[in-house]
Amino acid sequence: MHYLDHAATSPLRPAARAAWLEAADAVGNPSSLHGDGRRRRAIVEEARERIAAALGADPAEVILLSGGTEADNLGVKGLWWGRGGGRIVTTAVEHHAVLDPARWLAQTADATVHESPVSPNGSVDVDAFRTALPGAALASAMWVNNEVGAIQPIAELAAAAKEAGVPMHCDAVQAVGHLEVDFHESGLTTMAVSAHKLGGPVGVGALIARRDAPLSPLLHGGGQERKVRSGTVDAAGAAAFASALEEAVRTRQGEAARIAALAARLADGIRAAIPDAVVRGARDGYAPHIVHAVVPGASSEAMLMLMDASGVAVSSGSACTAGVVERSHVLQAMGHSAEESRSAVRFSLGWSSTDADVDAALAALPDAVSRARAAGQ
Amino acid sequence: MHYLDHAATSPLRPAARAAWLEAADAVGNPSSLHGDGRRRRAIVEEARERIAAALGADPAEVILLSGGTEADNLGVKGLWWGRGGGRIVTTAVEHHAVLDPARWLAQTADATVHESPVSPNGSVDVDAFRTALPGAALASAMWVNNEVGAIQPIAELAAAAKEAGVPMHCDAVQAVGHLEVDFHESGLTTMAVSAHKLGGPVGVGALIARRDAPLSPLLHGGGQERKVRSGTVDAAGAAAFASALEEAVRTRQGEAARIAALAARLADGIRAAIPDAVVRGARDGYAPHIVHAVVPGASSEAMLMLMDASGVAVSSGSACTAGVVERSHVLQAMGHSAEESRSAVRFSLGWSSTDADVDAALAALPDAVSRARAAGQ
Repeated sequence: MHYLDHAATSPLRPAARAAWLEAADAVGNPSSLHGDGRRRRAIVEEARERIAAALGADPAEVILLSGGTEADNLGVKGLWWGRGGGRIVTTAVEHHAVLDPARWLAQTADATVHESPVSPNGSVDVDAFRTALPGAALASAMWVNNEVGAIQPIAELAAAAKEAGVPMHCDAVQAVGHLEVDFHESGLTTMAVSAHKLGGPVGVGALIARRDAPLSPLLHGGGQERKVRSGTVDAAGAAAFASALEEAVRTRQGEAARIAALAARLADGIRAAIPDAVVRGARDGYAPHIVHAVVPGASSEAMLMLMDASGVAVSSGSACTAGVVERSHVLQAMGHSAEESRSAVRFSLGWSSTDADVDAALAALPDAVSRARAAGQ
Repeated sequence: MHYLDHAATSPLRPAARAAWLEAADAVGNPSSLHGDGRRRRAIVEEARERIAAALGADPAEVILLSGGTEADNLGVKGLWWGRGGGRIVTTAVEHHAVLDPARWLAQTADATVHESPVSPNGSVDVDAFRTALPGAALASAMWVNNEVGAIQPIAELAAAAKEAGVPMHCDAVQAVGHLEVDFHESGLTTMAVSAHKLGGPVGVGALIARRDAPLSPLLHGGGQERKVRSGTVDAAGAAAFASALEEAVRTRQGEAARIAALAARLADGIRAAIPDAVVRGARDGYAPHIVHAVVPGASSEAMLMLMDASGVAVSSGSACTAGVVERSHVLQAMGHSAEESRSAVRFSLGWSSTDADVDAALAALPDAVSRARAAGQ
């Protein structure tokens, strides 16, 4: 398979695999006082230091947990409960791991939710966001949109939140490893990171949280992770996460240029082959690893199943239920029709992507599009 | 090291390690529609079937998540929110992953919590539990106590809950692999299981939940795991969990007898060496893998550090914060003094335990106890 779905999950990097095995073969619970436990604890703390260093954070700011979804839930619900409730200011194009917790708090508790609109290119309306901030319990905006790759003006949004005295969470899952991400410089209160989106294992992630972040735990119990996240800390997962993250950040500049060049060739090829497609990515304002195309008249699932039959793994970018791709709330917020919001294909690149993958995608796409269009008529 | 702390975490079984690697080397998000995703999905679904079969459940009843703590939190909070709030009936000797969610709901929402008392041997008072049930939102009791190994009358408790029409959660983390656990026969509504307590990886577990369990999700987002637990499903973790669980259940009868014999020799040796110790375990009413001793006049942390210095890894059984063992709420509920509740040592055995481990523990204990007693005077 030519795998162009890194934004869904990236293959495990060999360094992360080796780190997982080494730590998994050790014995002991990191909370135990005996030697085995202390050695396991040392693996966790070394991993924590490496994760912190790679993200411009202090080790004490790294809360290890089960992945990006939990990190977003903890950022949103944890701050909401920690602040005693109130308004949540977010954007219309957030991942469901941010939108759905906010909406759940609105349905079951007394939260109100402001969702700032975005421009046709997917960029959040900073003025609308700022206007909604005063008196809010928390704000939340993503760094890079997971469907179209739009880079949000996160520095401006964070500065506005800071000025309004509102703690701000950021879903940085699609930014880390592709853009420069420095937690302390960002001005954010909390930030969600996932391991498996950058070549670490699935089931591991972190919420990076300032020590004064007013966070209520979501999982109560043994009091691990400075009492914000109970549960036996996963030493092997932490070590593998640290290795993947370190490699992604260390090689970022060269890799971003390499991947951007692949993405540019892919985007140009799509534009040439499907002239009426709306192609986003591979230029300023978009992350280097995502190329997204709205293809009028072709359903997402038909395109991706036909690409799959040609040996190319791509995605619609939005959620699917029982094999049917849902309308993308992101594309609808960007002004696309309901029909267009089910007619997208997302190509996402990463550490293992090659010229051959782009060649295969460009070879398969025209036929997949014409067949998908024919099937839809 | 002679490792006698399986109840804290058990070494990774070779079969689980191999299953993890095989699944981790596959590519793709189990939610993706393309071939890589479908193959990863097949790994997850095969693991789910094996987990279900090992626990007497249907595959659709297996909700994969990050471990025992999350499973207990989902069981307690998920049922509480799902039922619209009310009284929580539980026991005084539950793990913190059950007690602390219940108490958090009491502090921050309008829950009330009944904690049934226990006998001096650690067994829950069934009458007190039953009396508190009518009109409750949920009940929760553990199958095996993680500190002293007491087996709870879970069938009676579940029958009482069923009769009262109250959904019942059970923390079965210390029971699975050591006792016969059949979810359908148990009459429970939900049941928490952890992978790493039985030789699977850390960071993986399941809530086994009847399809009609009124569960509100704790983590919102992509809607995985029949919308009860969002987040990319960890295929490698699930496969490794299934392999460890299957091996633990398949070999249970022989292993339980082998481990019970080791535990009996250990308990007898402790009674002979420390005549005033209160030794629990290795007889009817206790799980086969835990031997627990209250040693008057010797602090838990001194004993376990001295045992550690002799190459034997044991635990106090209760939580520790910054290297200091907290008073055990379990021992206090069983009628021990505050002082005695900080004077315990727990030996817990598992699949890798040998005669040599028991020999080493019995060789080291007398000196550790006398030094710990001397230090405390």
